[in-house]
Amino acid sequence: MNADEFRRRGKEMVDYVADYLEGIEARQVYPDVEPGYLRPLIPPTAPQEPDTFEDIINDVEKIIMPGVTHWHSPYFFAYFPTASSYPAMLADMLCGAIGCIGFSWAASPACTELETVMMDWLGRMLQLPEAFLAGEAGEGGGVIQGSASEATLVALLAARTKVIRCLQTASPGLTQAAVMEKLVAYASDQAHSSVERAGLIGGVKLKAIPSDGKFALRASALQEALERDKAAGLIPFFVVATLGTTSCCSFDNLLEVGPVCRKEGVWLHVDAAYAGSAFICPEFRHLLDGVEFADSFNFNPHKWLLVNFDCSAMWVKKRTDLTGAFKLDPVYLKHSHQDSGLITDYRHWQLPLGRRFRSLKMWFVFRLYGVTGLQAYIRKHVQLSHEFESLVRQDPRFEICAEVTLGLVCFRLKGPNSQNEALLERINSARRIHLVPCRLRDQFVLRFAICSRTVESAHVRLAWEHIRGLAAELLGAEKE
Amino acid sequence: MNADEFRRRGKEMVDYVADYLEGIEARQVYPDVEPGYLRPLIPPTAPQEPDTFEDIINDVEKIIMPGVTHWHSPYFFAYFPTASSYPAMLADMLCGAIGCIGFSWAASPACTELETVMMDWLGRMLQLPEAFLAGEAGEGGGVIQGSASEATLVALLAARTKVIRCLQTASPGLTQAAVMEKLVAYASDQAHSSVERAGLIGGVKLKAIPSDGKFALRASALQEALERDKAAGLIPFFVVATLGTTSCCSFDNLLEVGPVCRKEGVWLHVDAAYAGSAFICPEFRHLLDGVEFADSFNFNPHKWLLVNFDCSAMWVKKRTDLTGAFKLDPVYLKHSHQDSGLITDYRHWQLPLGRRFRSLKMWFVFRLYGVTGLQAYIRKHVQLSHEFESLVRQDPRFEICAEVTLGLVCFRLKGPNSQNEALLERINSARRIHLVPCRLRDQFVLRFAICSRTVESAHVRLAWEHIRGLAAELLGAEKE
Ligand SMILES: Cc1ncc(COP(=O)(O)O)c(C=O)c1O
Ligand SMILES: Cc1ncc(COP(=O)(O)O)c(C=O)c1O
Repeated sequence: MNADEFRRRGKEMVDYVADYLEGIEARQVYPDVEPGYLRPLIPPTAPQEPDTFEDIINDVEKIIMPGVTHWHSPYFFAYFPTASSYPAMLADMLCGAIGCIGFSWAASPACTELETVMMDWLGRMLQLPEAFLAGEAGEGGGVIQGSASEATLVALLAARTKVIRCLQTASPGLTQAAVMEKLVAYASDQAHSSVERAGLIGGVKLKAIPSDGKFALRASALQEALERDKAAGLIPFFVVATLGTTSCCSFDNLLEVGPVCRKEGVWLHVDAAYAGSAFICPEFRHLLDGVEFADSFNFNPHKWLLVNFDCSAMWVKKRTDLTGAFKLDPVYLKHSHQDSGLITDYRHWQLPLGRRFRSLKMWFVFRLYGVTGLQAYIRKHVQLSHEFESLVRQDPRFEICAEVTLGLVCFRLKGPNSQNEALLERINSARRIHLVPCRLRDQFVLRFAICSRTVESAHVRLAWEHIRGLAAELLGAEKE
Repeated sequence: MNADEFRRRGKEMVDYVADYLEGIEARQVYPDVEPGYLRPLIPPTAPQEPDTFEDIINDVEKIIMPGVTHWHSPYFFAYFPTASSYPAMLADMLCGAIGCIGFSWAASPACTELETVMMDWLGRMLQLPEAFLAGEAGEGGGVIQGSASEATLVALLAARTKVIRCLQTASPGLTQAAVMEKLVAYASDQAHSSVERAGLIGGVKLKAIPSDGKFALRASALQEALERDKAAGLIPFFVVATLGTTSCCSFDNLLEVGPVCRKEGVWLHVDAAYAGSAFICPEFRHLLDGVEFADSFNFNPHKWLLVNFDCSAMWVKKRTDLTGAFKLDPVYLKHSHQDSGLITDYRHWQLPLGRRFRSLKMWFVFRLYGVTGLQAYIRKHVQLSHEFESLVRQDPRFEICAEVTLGLVCFRLKGPNSQNEALLERINSARRIHLVPCRLRDQFVLRFAICSRTVESAHVRLAWEHIRGLAAELLGAEKE
């Protein structure tokens, strides 16, 4: 395919994309296919000679679309949102064309420098403490990671290196293994599974601290665990606090937990994967209070800030903690000194070596929406979730299971788990809307997350009527 | 921005992309900017109200392009290639529009199933042993990782879990830390830095084995290291063999190393990040001989197979080794059993949770080029590197430093390192072409990598004339 054909096919694809998104409401949100559906529809080997573009586009509708879960349908209320916007898609096209790999400053200076500045823009939108910004010559700074999971892992590894290095300086004979055996990381029992996984990968113990009645991590429970473990000769080194937990969007008490971490000299990482986007609105900024105690902070613009996947925004107060994380030898420290100057080599901030020019997406989205446009977007979603909440509250057969703060509503029938499982089964089998469940303590709970960029009050009301109808059917059937 | 405006702007962007790539030869391949150039050109905060699209597109030329290293210029001969093709860009547009996150089968069945089938297609193109394919009901299978670095880390973690579990089964009292302290991974002294990093992250020792005169890992050196470490009470568990090393594209001797790993019961991971793409040509397939001994194999279609970043193809012989890697508890094993059926949850195969619909890029590229088109592309690059090699060989002032097998030529002036450093400095300062150096033993060496999709014999000849001219200047200046 040459440039001329790309001009033609590219424009057709732009129309296909626009048609898809304009018409997405008419597509069934969750597919009917069975596992293994696709293989028989596709030849067992790649063609020797080229197929035509028409063949492929036809196959997209015939083979791919029937197996797609339409995450951007206004009837998709599952998981958390994943971002999608036209400006981000335009930026992605440019990113693909430039196609540079920005692992070091020299590998493409614009790629590195725009990222640093965009992370400062975003940090200022959130009113992050200056210490997290790169500014002209700060010690902190931001980096785009591929996912919140990677950010948590990178933070844990940085904290691990720091504590090992510190203890080895104090007792030169100490082996790394001897330290690692005693290291303990902490998170609440509501933390995302990626935290547990970071512990497994990093080869350190992770302890789940019981959350309180509002599913929040509190100082007392954390302090108790720390005391117990220290008394047993273990070494607490890392705490993850979650703002906006995956199950019910609860908030760990950062203003309590932060001072404990500071006092104990433990690295505090704040994971606000979903909720972080909301902090650009002054009325939600208080939810981030206490971030000044954190060593690292992360959230996903690719969830709720209109920047298509992948774009996970991470800040640290000391860049050298991150850049030193992957090297234990002191020779490296000399090199990392360069890094506190103007030259940033982002390969030292992340797990992979290669990286795309992802900051273009942020630049396009922030400029084409403006801060007010982004705030309006967040507010609309929060308003829709409150609308759904009030509908649920009006129906005495249902209950709300956790405080509704942002765009997620946890609810259930006031009945046994089995009834709620049956209801969810009916909802997802009907294919009109798509939800996923969660467990809160021993309750089976339905999660209604406002997801789509184009979801409106009408969709939310329709979804509720549909759920009510299925609940009535279910309860009626049970009576018979 | 609504769908109508996206139709308009998207088509403008398609033209911008085509113009950029058609005109890339006229752009200076390496930018003139100094560190910190960008920040003063951009406001310190995001705009409150939206900017216009024209503003942004103007700024792309004014602010971004002057700082871009043009990786797709036919005068770019640095690092290794990074893939770029129109079909991949079209697929990426579609991927962005669908915008699904394919962490589990249910999250978007087509996303998971096309990936499994495309990895089988690609595996068959390479004539990978059947054991690596998913097929209808195989135990192996492929997954798209974001980078070769992640693939190596995932393989190391899987091997680590496997050996720990195995030793703990034999001696139930053994702690994880007690095992980890003794684990040793191996790679040649030519292996990519990501291997060392995987060791650091995984908290295990990594030993560099001296390569032979052709920069290849041989059985004898490996066996010697294994014996020494076993005698010292250590536990060898993981070997990385590289096919196509980063410095000089040398090949570890897989047919020797493989049997050693098998005999010792050590996990063998094969990293063919760059070279792997060439194995689709029958005349290069012999370079992959011995892969039948490997437990995992990886290469980057996003380097040399026309699939835009990111797309790193990884296969394993036993899927359950990977899917079990992030969990040590036996309860999980029960669950992993589901995974051997038709349902694949790719989140258990990788570090991040989220994942894009990347297999669309493979599907578009494989179908629109056909296997013959892809082979022709590889062959053209290899031919160009041999052309450059023969030009270098005709000039008695220069020498070739390593065997030229694929698209990389390592060469230098027959003189001291300082002379070659000075030559590289002149080359990169002149900005006509872009190269990066490497070290081979104690020699400073220039790497000439065939990179761009559009590079032709004329560019290679021009580059050589340019290098010769600069060398003549340098040698003349030295004489004076
Ligand atoms: C609180 C929290 N942390 C982490 C994650 C994982 O995000 P990612 O897919 O970016 O790794 C999620 C995903 O929903 C989340 O809700
Ligand atoms: C042999 C080898 N392995 C690994 C890598 C790292 O690749 P990635 O950027 O995909 O992590 C490279 C990069 O050039 C390489 O040459």
